[in-house]
Amino acid sequence: MSILIQNVLLADQSTDLLIEGNRIARIAPEIPEPSGATLIDGSHQAILPGLHNGHTHAAMVLLRGYADDMPLHQWLTEKIWPIEAKMTEESVYWGTKLACVEMIRTGTTFFNDMYWHRQGSVRAVTEMGLRASLAGVVIDLFDKAKAREQRAEVENAFAVAQENSCDRIQFTLGPHAIYTVSEASLRWIAEFATQHDLLIHTHLSETQKEVDDCLAQHGVRPVEYLERIGFLGSRVSFGHGIWLDERERAILGERGCAIVTNPCANMKLGSGMFAFADTAKAGIPIGLGTDGTSSNNNLDLFEEMKFAALLEKVRTMDPTAVPAAEILRTATAENAKIFRLGSGVVEEGALADLILVNLRALAYAPGHNFVSDAVYSGTGYHVNTTICDGKILMRDREIPGEEEIRVKAIECSGFLTA
Amino acid sequence: MSILIQNVLLADQSTDLLIEGNRIARIAPEIPEPSGATLIDGSHQAILPGLHNGHTHAAMVLLRGYADDMPLHQWLTEKIWPIEAKMTEESVYWGTKLACVEMIRTGTTFFNDMYWHRQGSVRAVTEMGLRASLAGVVIDLFDKAKAREQRAEVENAFAVAQENSCDRIQFTLGPHAIYTVSEASLRWIAEFATQHDLLIHTHLSETQKEVDDCLAQHGVRPVEYLERIGFLGSRVSFGHGIWLDERERAILGERGCAIVTNPCANMKLGSGMFAFADTAKAGIPIGLGTDGTSSNNNLDLFEEMKFAALLEKVRTMDPTAVPAAEILRTATAENAKIFRLGSGVVEEGALADLILVNLRALAYAPGHNFVSDAVYSGTGYHVNTTICDGKILMRDREIPGEEEIRVKAIECSGFLTA
Repeated sequence: MSILIQNVLLADQSTDLLIEGNRIARIAPEIPEPSGATLIDGSHQAILPGLHNGHTHAAMVLLRGYADDMPLHQWLTEKIWPIEAKMTEESVYWGTKLACVEMIRTGTTFFNDMYWHRQGSVRAVTEMGLRASLAGVVIDLFDKAKAREQRAEVENAFAVAQENSCDRIQFTLGPHAIYTVSEASLRWIAEFATQHDLLIHTHLSETQKEVDDCLAQHGVRPVEYLERIGFLGSRVSFGHGIWLDERERAILGERGCAIVTNPCANMKLGSGMFAFADTAKAGIPIGLGTDGTSSNNNLDLFEEMKFAALLEKVRTMDPTAVPAAEILRTATAENAKIFRLGSGVVEEGALADLILVNLRALAYAPGHNFVSDAVYSGTGYHVNTTICDGKILMRDREIPGEEEIRVKAIECSGFLTA
Repeated sequence: MSILIQNVLLADQSTDLLIEGNRIARIAPEIPEPSGATLIDGSHQAILPGLHNGHTHAAMVLLRGYADDMPLHQWLTEKIWPIEAKMTEESVYWGTKLACVEMIRTGTTFFNDMYWHRQGSVRAVTEMGLRASLAGVVIDLFDKAKAREQRAEVENAFAVAQENSCDRIQFTLGPHAIYTVSEASLRWIAEFATQHDLLIHTHLSETQKEVDDCLAQHGVRPVEYLERIGFLGSRVSFGHGIWLDERERAILGERGCAIVTNPCANMKLGSGMFAFADTAKAGIPIGLGTDGTSSNNNLDLFEEMKFAALLEKVRTMDPTAVPAAEILRTATAENAKIFRLGSGVVEEGALADLILVNLRALAYAPGHNFVSDAVYSGTGYHVNTTICDGKILMRDREIPGEEEIRVKAIECSGFLTA
C-alpha cells in the first residue's frame, strides 16, 4: 500500500512525498502517482515528523482534573494512589485508548509509557496504530515477596510480548524510581535488560526530597548510587533529572544515559526547573515528554515544546536559549534516537510517522517562520492529518471511532472515582 | 434583540441564560422563549465570561514569528523598530482585525491595547465587535518638539473619540514607559487623565536594566520616581511589574495601581518571573495579558492562564499557588474591574460578553473538574461561540469574514517585511 502526499510544505519548499509500506520512499517535486495509491492534497499544509512523547503514563488521562492545586504528598496519598489501586486492565485499556486519540489529534505518533496492567496498554496501542515503548513496571516498595512476584510478572510479560509481537510496540523495563524499588530489583533489571537488549525507563531526581532521602539512606546522591550498583548505561532514560549536580551530570554523560524533561508537570507540581543548558553541556541526550495528564494536564506536545523553550529562557534569563528549531528536534529526532526507533525525521528511508499541519490556522498567520509559529504560536489542535507506520490514523481531523472511545473512557473513569 | 442560550453548563449546573440588548437579563432553568429571540443550544457546552486581555499590542500580530530567539536589544533595534516605523494606519487596521479574529476564535472579548495609529485600531474594533481600551500613545524619547507634537495628537484623538464614540471602545492614555517618556509628558498625562477621568496604561519594570538605569538617572527606583512626580493612582495599570522591591509594592498597593502580568512574553524574552504572591499580598489588583504576538507568540488567554499559574507554582515551589479558579478570575472579573467595564462575570445585569466552551473536546474528558480542564488542559481553540456586547461574533466556530481578513493581513505584513 502506498500514500502520495502532494504539494506539501517541507522546510519552506513545496514538495511531494511518497510512502510505501511503513517508510518514506521518496521526497521530490511532482512524483508520478503509483496505481492504487491513496492521494493526500498537502496544499496549505506543512509536513513534520510526528511528535514523540518521551515520558508519560497514558492511562492516567482517566484522572485528568481529578485532583489539582494540592500539596504533592496529599495529592498522591489521598487522591492518585487510592484511585490507581482500583484500576484494572480494562480501565487501562480504555484510558490508553483515550490517550491515543488525544495524541493522534495533537500530532503525536510515539509515546514512551510506564503504567500498570501493561496488557491493557498493549491492546490499546495495537488497535490505535501508534508506536509505543511500554514498560514492564517494578515498584516493589522494598518488599522481598512483592519483588519476586513483580520480577516474575515482568519475565512473563516479556515472554508473552516475544510471542505476540506488534512491530510498533517495544518492550521496555520500568523500575519506578530509587525510592520505590529495591537495590536487588534494580540490579536484576539492569541484568535482564543487558541479557535481552532492552531499554530501561525510570524516574530520577524529580524533587529535592529524593536527593535528600538518598543522601540520608545511601550516603551518596542518586546518580552516584545508581553508578555504584551498576545500573547506568546507554539503554537507560530518566524522566525529569532536575536536581542533579555537576558531578552527577558528568557521570550520566559518560555512561550515555538520556534525560527526558517534562516542564509542565515539573512546574505544576512545583518540583523545580530542569537545567537544559547544563544537561546538554554534559553531553546527555535530552528528550521531551508530557508526563501523565493528572500532572500536566494534557498530552499536547506542541504546548510542551513552548513550555520547555520558555522555561529555559527565563531560567537562564537568555532569550536565545533553546531556539524553536532545537526544541522541535528534541521532540522528534532526539526522542526517536533515545528510543532507537528510526523515526522522527522527514527523510527517505525513515519510518513514515508524519503529521500535516494546517497553515491556514490563525496561529500560522502571517507565516514569517513556520517553525517559530509551530512552537510558539500553534497547538496540537492545528494538526489536520496524522500518519504512523505508513497508516493514516487521522485524516482531515477525522479519527475513526473517536466518539465511542471518549464515551467509554468517561464511563470507566466514572467507575473509578465513584 | 434577545438571545436565549438553553441547557448550558454554568458552575456545574445546567441552566438557560437570556441576553437582552447588551446585558445578561436572566439566568434560570427553562426560561420561556421570547418572540424573535435567537436560540442557541448550549448542550455539551459550558458558559464562561469572555476572557479579558489586560495588556497587548494587537497589530503586532503582523510580526508574529518575524524575529524570535534573539537578544532583546538586537531584536528591538534590528528587527521590530525598523518594521514598526513602516506601519501605517492601514496596516494597523488590518493587523488589529487579524488580532480580533484570533481573539474571537480563542474566547477573548476585551483587550487593553497600546499601539500607534490608534484610528486604525478604532476602525478595526468598531467593525469586529469586541470591547477594547485603546490608548493614545506617547513615546517622546525626551525630545521636546516630539513631546509637544504627541501631546497635541493625543488631545486631538481624544476630541475625535468624544465625537465619534463607539460604546465598546474606551479612550485611555498610553505613555510607553519611564525610559521612553519625559517627566514633563508623564506629568501632563497624569493631569489630562484626572481632568477627563481616563485610565492610564504603561509599562513598568519589565527588565532589571530598567531599574538600574532609573537608579542611575534619578537616584530612586521606578515606582519611587513615579510617586515623586505624582503619576500614581487608581487609574494607572502597569504591564509587567517584575522587578519591584517590597517598598515599591507597598506604594503601588497604597495608591491603588494595578499590575497586568504577561508570563509568556516575560519568559520568552528572558525578562524574569513575576512575583504573583508578593504582588497580591501588597493589595495590588492583578490582571493577565498576552503582550504583543511578536513576544508571545499568540493571543490565546487560555494558554496564558496555564503559563501564569504554572510559572508561579514553580517560582514558589508550591503546587497550591494560584489555583485554576484564581487565574480564571484574574483573566475575567479582575481584568474587568481594573478597566472598569462591568463585564467579566456571568451574572444577571452584567454585560453580555460570554463564551461557550465545547465540553466534547478531548481536553475536557473525562470531565472531573471543568475549571481545571479549562486552565490546565484546554486551549482557546475549544471555544465554540463568542458573544460580545450582546452580539454573536462567532457561532459554532464560524466567524464571518475571517478568511478575507487573514488574507488581507498577510498581504499587509508582506509589504512591511519586504
